[in-house]
Amino acid sequence: MNRNDQQAYDRGTSLYSPDGRIYQVEYAREAVKRGAPSVGVRTENGVVLAAQSRAGSSLMVQESIEKLHKIDDHVGAASAGHVADARKLVDFARREAQTNRLRYDEPIGIETLTKEVTDLIQENTQRGGTRPYGAALLVGGIDSTGPRLFGTDPSGTPHEWKAVAIGGGRETIQGHLEEEYRGDLDLDAGVDLAVNALLSELEDVDATGLSVAVVSEDGYHDYTVDEIDAHLDTQTDATEDE
Amino acid sequence: MNRNDQQAYDRGTSLYSPDGRIYQVEYAREAVKRGAPSVGVRTENGVVLAAQSRAGSSLMVQESIEKLHKIDDHVGAASAGHVADARKLVDFARREAQTNRLRYDEPIGIETLTKEVTDLIQENTQRGGTRPYGAALLVGGIDSTGPRLFGTDPSGTPHEWKAVAIGGGRETIQGHLEEEYRGDLDLDAGVDLAVNALLSELEDVDATGLSVAVVSEDGYHDYTVDEIDAHLDTQTDATEDE
Amino acid sequence: MNRNDQQAYDRGTSLYSPDGRIYQVEYAREAVKRGAPSVGVRTENGVVLAAQSRAGSSLMVQESIEKLHKIDDHVGAASAGHVADARKLVDFARREAQTNRLRYDEPIGIETLTKEVTDLIQENTQRGGTRPYGAALLVGGIDSTGPRLFGTDPSGTPHEWKAVAIGGGRETIQGHLEEEYRGDLDLDAGVDLAVNALLSELEDVDATGLSVAVVSEDGYHDYTVDEIDAHLDTQTDATEDE
Amino acid sequence: MNRNDQQAYDRGTSLYSPDGRIYQVEYAREAVKRGAPSVGVRTENGVVLAAQSRAGSSLMVQESIEKLHKIDDHVGAASAGHVADARKLVDFARREAQTNRLRYDEPIGIETLTKEVTDLIQENTQRGGTRPYGAALLVGGIDSTGPRLFGTDPSGTPHEWKAVAIGGGRETIQGHLEEEYRGDLDLDAGVDLAVNALLSELEDVDATGLSVAVVSEDGYHDYTVDEIDAHLDTQTDATEDE
Amino acid sequence: MNRNDQQAYDRGTSLYSPDGRIYQVEYAREAVKRGAPSVGVRTENGVVLAAQSRAGSSLMVQESIEKLHKIDDHVGAASAGHVADARKLVDFARREAQTNRLRYDEPIGIETLTKEVTDLIQENTQRGGTRPYGAALLVGGIDSTGPRLFGTDPSGTPHEWKAVAIGGGRETIQGHLEEEYRGDLDLDAGVDLAVNALLSELEDVDATGLSVAVVSEDGYHDYTVDEIDAHLDTQTDATEDE
Amino acid sequence: MNRNDQQAYDRGTSLYSPDGRIYQVEYAREAVKRGAPSVGVRTENGVVLAAQSRAGSSLMVQESIEKLHKIDDHVGAASAGHVADARKLVDFARREAQTNRLRYDEPIGIETLTKEVTDLIQENTQRGGTRPYGAALLVGGIDSTGPRLFGTDPSGTPHEWKAVAIGGGRETIQGHLEEEYRGDLDLDAGVDLAVNALLSELEDVDATGLSVAVVSEDGYHDYTVDEIDAHLDTQTDATEDE
Amino acid sequence: MNRNDQQAYDRGTSLYSPDGRIYQVEYAREAVKRGAPSVGVRTENGVVLAAQSRAGSSLMVQESIEKLHKIDDHVGAASAGHVADARKLVDFARREAQTNRLRYDEPIGIETLTKEVTDLIQENTQRGGTRPYGAALLVGGIDSTGPRLFGTDPSGTPHEWKAVAIGGGRETIQGHLEEEYRGDLDLDAGVDLAVNALLSELEDVDATGLSVAVVSEDGYHDYTVDEIDAHLDTQTDATEDE
Repeated sequence: MNRNDQQAYDRGTSLYSPDGRIYQVEYAREAVKRGAPSVGVRTENGVVLAAQSRAGSSLMVQESIEKLHKIDDHVGAASAGHVADARKLVDFARREAQTNRLRYDEPIGIETLTKEVTDLIQENTQRGGTRPYGAALLVGGIDSTGPRLFGTDPSGTPHEWKAVAIGGGRETIQGHLEEEYRGDLDLDAGVDLAVNALLSELEDVDATGLSVAVVSEDGYHDYTVDEIDAHLDTQTDATEDE
Repeated sequence: MNRNDQQAYDRGTSLYSPDGRIYQVEYAREAVKRGAPSVGVRTENGVVLAAQSRAGSSLMVQESIEKLHKIDDHVGAASAGHVADARKLVDFARREAQTNRLRYDEPIGIETLTKEVTDLIQENTQRGGTRPYGAALLVGGIDSTGPRLFGTDPSGTPHEWKAVAIGGGRETIQGHLEEEYRGDLDLDAGVDLAVNALLSELEDVDATGLSVAVVSEDGYHDYTVDEIDAHLDTQTDATEDE
Repeated sequence: MNRNDQQAYDRGTSLYSPDGRIYQVEYAREAVKRGAPSVGVRTENGVVLAAQSRAGSSLMVQESIEKLHKIDDHVGAASAGHVADARKLVDFARREAQTNRLRYDEPIGIETLTKEVTDLIQENTQRGGTRPYGAALLVGGIDSTGPRLFGTDPSGTPHEWKAVAIGGGRETIQGHLEEEYRGDLDLDAGVDLAVNALLSELEDVDATGLSVAVVSEDGYHDYTVDEIDAHLDTQTDATEDE
Repeated sequence: MNRNDQQAYDRGTSLYSPDGRIYQVEYAREAVKRGAPSVGVRTENGVVLAAQSRAGSSLMVQESIEKLHKIDDHVGAASAGHVADARKLVDFARREAQTNRLRYDEPIGIETLTKEVTDLIQENTQRGGTRPYGAALLVGGIDSTGPRLFGTDPSGTPHEWKAVAIGGGRETIQGHLEEEYRGDLDLDAGVDLAVNALLSELEDVDATGLSVAVVSEDGYHDYTVDEIDAHLDTQTDATEDE
Repeated sequence: MNRNDQQAYDRGTSLYSPDGRIYQVEYAREAVKRGAPSVGVRTENGVVLAAQSRAGSSLMVQESIEKLHKIDDHVGAASAGHVADARKLVDFARREAQTNRLRYDEPIGIETLTKEVTDLIQENTQRGGTRPYGAALLVGGIDSTGPRLFGTDPSGTPHEWKAVAIGGGRETIQGHLEEEYRGDLDLDAGVDLAVNALLSELEDVDATGLSVAVVSEDGYHDYTVDEIDAHLDTQTDATEDE
Repeated sequence: MNRNDQQAYDRGTSLYSPDGRIYQVEYAREAVKRGAPSVGVRTENGVVLAAQSRAGSSLMVQESIEKLHKIDDHVGAASAGHVADARKLVDFARREAQTNRLRYDEPIGIETLTKEVTDLIQENTQRGGTRPYGAALLVGGIDSTGPRLFGTDPSGTPHEWKAVAIGGGRETIQGHLEEEYRGDLDLDAGVDLAVNALLSELEDVDATGLSVAVVSEDGYHDYTVDEIDAHLDTQTDATEDE
Repeated sequence: MNRNDQQAYDRGTSLYSPDGRIYQVEYAREAVKRGAPSVGVRTENGVVLAAQSRAGSSLMVQESIEKLHKIDDHVGAASAGHVADARKLVDFARREAQTNRLRYDEPIGIETLTKEVTDLIQENTQRGGTRPYGAALLVGGIDSTGPRLFGTDPSGTPHEWKAVAIGGGRETIQGHLEEEYRGDLDLDAGVDLAVNALLSELEDVDATGLSVAVVSEDGYHDYTVDEIDAHLDTQTDATEDE
């Protein structure tokens, strides 16, 4: 379908093209690609979330870039794409998690939580008068079924992953993950893999340009710059060892 | 009607073309064809649901592709098309099934359930400001009338089937079913037929690329990879026997 | 009015053309003509409803094609056109019939019932943001005034008929009815006439491709394939007798 | 204003043209002209309503064409134009009449009733998202002020008349009425005038193609075909007498 | 601004043109000019309202043309323009007057009443999805401040007048009023002036083609044809006297 | 940006142009300029409001032109632009002032009142389906902080002024104010300045063509024609003195 | 993407371009750039807010230009862009701060407050029928975590800053801040830096053309012209010292 024909069908979420596509959802996927990448890795004892944190100015407080988000004690999220949209989804996830604790007195399941979020996302792809969320989330944590890692996209489709990348440079990073992922990773090796995968796409990034968080039986933990830095060293060593 | 004329009438669900067609519904049917195929087979002692589960990455957890969905103990669904839309319909079906149990203390009839779903689908084909659901469902199960299998399409039309395919490659698969279906199939033979029908269209698919579920007097049962694999062998044998 | 001028006024139910027409209603009539035909015949002791039931596949369960619909013990409907729209109208009619029984403890009048349906249809021809129902109904039954047969169209106009056809090939079938109808038909002769009228338009149809129902003092009765077949024989004989 | 300029302002009820016209209302008047004509005549002791009842098929039940409508014991209406729209207005009038009886325990005034209807009609000429009613009504009856006859049009303007025609061929019929009307007509002479006026426009119409009703102190009375036929004879005689 | 540029800004009440005009309001003023003229004259002991009553047919009941409207015992209105719109405004004014009596047990002030009406009119010039009222009103009566006469226009601007004309031929009639008005007119002279002013524009009009009403300490009084005729004679005399 | 490009972005309040402008707000400013000018002057002991009162006819009651509006005992407003819009804003201001008295038993602050009005104005510049208010207000009065004078514009921006002009010829009048304003003006000198400033733009205006009001510790006071006339004399003298 | 293509996607907040951009948000950023600049600087003992206050007339009261806004005792805001939009956001922030005090009896956190504001902003970038807020805010204050400074933009993204500029000439001013900012600034040095940064972009500005406020443990404090003037001298000295 050429550009002129495409334009006839790409002005609204309540419109299919003759070949059955919803262009506004596809364009929202482009919005995700415009953002810095995030990565999730499921390990034997927890989930690793990592992201590039691009600061537009040396005076911006690095922590406020917010690519990683604690949702509840047992679950976190990494985002890519339109920042304000991602914040809305994260806020929604937090409220769902809190509501679950209040109602059932137990932590929300990671899959349940993800699907609440994708339900919200889907609704914005079907009604007119709105646009799809221009953000993707990785939702990772530990529940009664063990470590779980899910991804959402602007169409509202949830998928479970062993390891996954979203955002700019996704193809390269996902390729790295597919090559290097092993099922028996522990958390520490998972952090190595996540950081390594991001570096496969990014150039000239040091620990201050990355965010890492892990969710394990000990709860949600944001890595300090020093902790990240240690893994950057490790990696270089690892690479040298090969 | 040529493309220019068609474009005059294809931008909304609240619009007929001069020859009485609703193009957005027809385009939603194209969305269904873009998805991987699903198959349903009614047998003497239950219903078989089967589908191709296309994983976009080796790191995606196969179970999360979700082409087959347990609705209630006595009924399941297979879907094709826009994944997030299908999930909405499946969620709706689950709520209807639960409501029926709460209200009447008995499992919902398969036909009743299907028609609740198609009512919802139809509404999205008549009001402006929304788009039709880009998904088709097969709803199969056992109720007081025995094994039943229904299909829905984006127009909201329900039909009952002995065996039916939806999604990509439907014509080939349905042709296979029409040639091979016999009324006296038992569940096991039904699984053979369903898998066989899918393979008539798909190439290079092994057990991990397929999902199979059966609904019998014993309830809803998802096949394991091994169980599916066994039927793949059977089939090959069967083919060799011919 | 040429096609270009027509296009200026045919995009909505809330729009007249300069010559006072509502094109979307006329296009909805085209949707009715795209469907298989249905026929109604009023006889001295009841009403006959008959329809072609086109199955798209040999595996489709014939009964699920649903051209004839029991509304209440004393009234049924035959439909033509957009199937999902017809189902909505039939559901509405069933609810109206039930409500009447609950409220007044008596069966709803056939004329009253028909007009409730046409009121609903009319509303969809006047408001923007929706489309007219693309279906026509024949509503036939027995009430305190005797056997009655009504037809509805996409404009929401009710008319009472002695015998009438809707859907594809209406002109031929209605012509046959006008030539052959007599006021003193009994139910059996009415079935002959209805089947005969359908066959005047359809080719190569046997009993499995037809649906027949009668509403008499004994209530609503769906004909079995054998019962239909018997009338097919009768007819052939009758034809031969001529 | 030429056709191109006109098209710039004729797509909605919420739009004036530069010369202060509301084209959708004018187009709705064309819808009225597309219908068969109706006539009302006020006489000294009641009001006569008459109309052509065009049947599209010999199998249509003549009474169901419904050009004349009993509103209450003391008031009736004749309609022209879009049949389903007219039915909506008639139903509204009936509800208003009943409400008045319930609330004040007396029959509604003919003028009051007419203005309730025209208020409803006017609202559909001012709001967007709807179209004007494509029907005109004659409302005639007897109240405490004597026999009264009112007409409504698609703009929602009420007028009182001694005798008036609406619908197709209005100009000819109204001309006949203006020439022949006398203030001292009794009901019987009023029926003659009404029928005569219709025949001035219609060709080859017999009693079965006409509907006549009178509202007098004895209430609303629909003429039988025989009663109408008697007046057709009278007329012919009268004509011969001249 | 040429016609093409104007068309870019004249399709809605919620739109300004680049030079700050609201064209739909200006077009509604054209709708007022399409109507027959009305006149109001404030005198020392009351207000005179007068209007041309154009009947489209000799069979139309002259009183039903309704250019003059009693609002309450102490206040009346004359209208010009779209008849059904004027009726809506008059009905609104009547309800406001009644509400005032119920709430405060006293007649509503003429200025207060007028401004309630213009508030309603203004709202229809600002919101989308509607059109301005295509009618102008003269509101005249006596309250605690003496005789008062106000005019409204489609923009919702109220103005108080000593004497004023609205509708077709307004310029000529207003010119006549400006030349002939004197502050010390009594009611009878006011009627002369009002009728004279209308005749300055109208040709071949007799008493049956005019409506006159006065509001004085004695309340609202509609003139009979004979009373109007007397003033026509007077005038002719007066003219002859000059 | 040329006219064609501008037209792409000037059809709604919910739309920015690529250079960040909201054209409908700018066009509403043109509506203000189409109106007669108003002036406000803050003096040491009160605020002066003055305006040209253009009468379209010698029979229009001058007081009804309403360029100056008493809001409460301690505050008044002068308006320019679309008259009916200004009245809406003035009514809103009056209600806010009354509500404040009821709720807090004290007169509303002038700044608070102004900002309530500009909040309302702003809302109409952001939502679709409406247009900005085409009027500007000067709000002047005395509260616990002394004499205050504020201006509003169609964007909803409030500003405080020592002296300010709005409406047609604003540039000339504001220039006059900037040259002649002194901080130590008393009310009488303030009236001189206000009248003088208006006359710098207007030609051939006498006292009947002007409105003047002052708000001082003695409350809101409208000047009579004689009082205005006295200041016109003063001014001429003053001019002569120079 | 060229201008023509861009125009296809820039008419609404509910629309993505094919490359995933939301043009209306980008255009709102242009609206921010059209405003005078504001600056925020976080110091060791408080936050400095400063802005250019452009007066359009010598008679405008400088304080009413309102670039700096006290939100609560412990927090203030600086704004740039569309003035009326900024006021709406500031009012919203004030209500949120008050609500927090009422509900929890403690001052609202600066980060919490900022995110309430950005949630509101985001909503206006996703729904149709509205436009994004054309204003940016700097929110600065002291809470239990010490001095904090946040910025918002029209997309609804919050970021924390050590020092930041918004509005016209942002690039130059931010460059100056990046060069000169040191982490150990005290409030006084922070004011110097803020003023200095503004002057790097602005020409011919004296103390009356600037606004400065600080939020420290002593609360929110607006600088007087003299206080600002003192820092202008300091700066000149400082500059001279270099």
